[in-house]
Amino acid sequence: MELEYVLPGEIEKRSFEMIGKELDDMGITLPKDKAFLIKRAIHTTADFDYAKTLYFSDGAIDRVKELLKEGATIVTDTNMALAGINKKVLAELGGKALCFMADEDVAKEAKDRGLTRAAVSMEKAARLDGPVIFAIGNAPTALVALREMYDKKDYRPSFVIGVPVGFVNVEAAKELIIDTDIPCIINRGRKGGSNVAAAICNALLYSLR
Amino acid sequence: MELEYVLPGEIEKRSFEMIGKELDDMGITLPKDKAFLIKRAIHTTADFDYAKTLYFSDGAIDRVKELLKEGATIVTDTNMALAGINKKVLAELGGKALCFMADEDVAKEAKDRGLTRAAVSMEKAARLDGPVIFAIGNAPTALVALREMYDKKDYRPSFVIGVPVGFVNVEAAKELIIDTDIPCIINRGRKGGSNVAAAICNALLYSLR
Repeated sequence: MELEYVLPGEIEKRSFEMIGKELDDMGITLPKDKAFLIKRAIHTTADFDYAKTLYFSDGAIDRVKELLKEGATIVTDTNMALAGINKKVLAELGGKALCFMADEDVAKEAKDRGLTRAAVSMEKAARLDGPVIFAIGNAPTALVALREMYDKKDYRPSFVIGVPVGFVNVEAAKELIIDTDIPCIINRGRKGGSNVAAAICNALLYSLR
Repeated sequence: MELEYVLPGEIEKRSFEMIGKELDDMGITLPKDKAFLIKRAIHTTADFDYAKTLYFSDGAIDRVKELLKEGATIVTDTNMALAGINKKVLAELGGKALCFMADEDVAKEAKDRGLTRAAVSMEKAARLDGPVIFAIGNAPTALVALREMYDKKDYRPSFVIGVPVGFVNVEAAKELIIDTDIPCIINRGRKGGSNVAAAICNALLYSLR
């Protein structure tokens, strides 16, 4: 196997060309307004399943872009996703990204109440001022907590990027968000991850740059 | 789809049971000494391909565990992988994790020399004192840089966890490490990621806890 010489600044462009070509070869045509985002999820995972499993509520892309332009806060459920989000571009739009998973008060409350830290993190995020975009790449319990607050009319998330990965309740938790009128981007099935959550945020941020 | 009630502290255990059962159903028996690590890669991605594509050099698991017990430094090629590694367990073993990707000197040198920041980061890591475990989840150019230093006999990495993801030169760069006598764990093919790099580090760290 030979190395192909590609200039550092051209690697990403070349990767997206390769993804586009392989999608063509597979006979898959992505929706025009969503291709930039779906391709970035594929770029981050080398997994073409994302061409088939990403779900967008009606008008999701326009809505989340509006929120980002208004300086919405992104809340993640892992420090990994937080690390992966391009905070520089987010700051240019007036937004910031937060993660409460490592907070001591969250750990204590989770233990006391028999909940996951992810669930308690969501409740903490619900007390923030202003619109929040939830970028969930790990914990289905975060999505369950958001749905519970929504059902009780305690809180309505402005937007949910719901791409937790895993085995226990992951598929069901994603459907719990799809079954509401909360604007969302969800990866149906088991796959996802902190990397995918960050990639979706970055795809949106780069489209606004 | 119904939610299954699982105690927060039991979710990971239940996930690993589900992974074990599905591997059984697929007729896949993992090598006993490597199952803990392969299962964690699957747990992080919900992708059973990792049961087939992870490559281990002879004695790789023993070697990397020894290095971790000796307090080796882990160097990553993304701040995401750095964020995902359990630094608490690593510190208990006397080790630390570093990432030079956001360093200004690295950015400047990469620009001046027409290299990727990942490549220059590897050269910076090669100047560290003591053994270094490279945990590469993103940039094939990091693996190419390590191979170049090895070929010139400038530097010999103590261990390489080589799981970059992507399209341009990713497969070839992985084979460049497999073709040396550097002890390594490599995910053959295009798949991998910062999440997988961190998961492999954590599987090893948890096995030593």
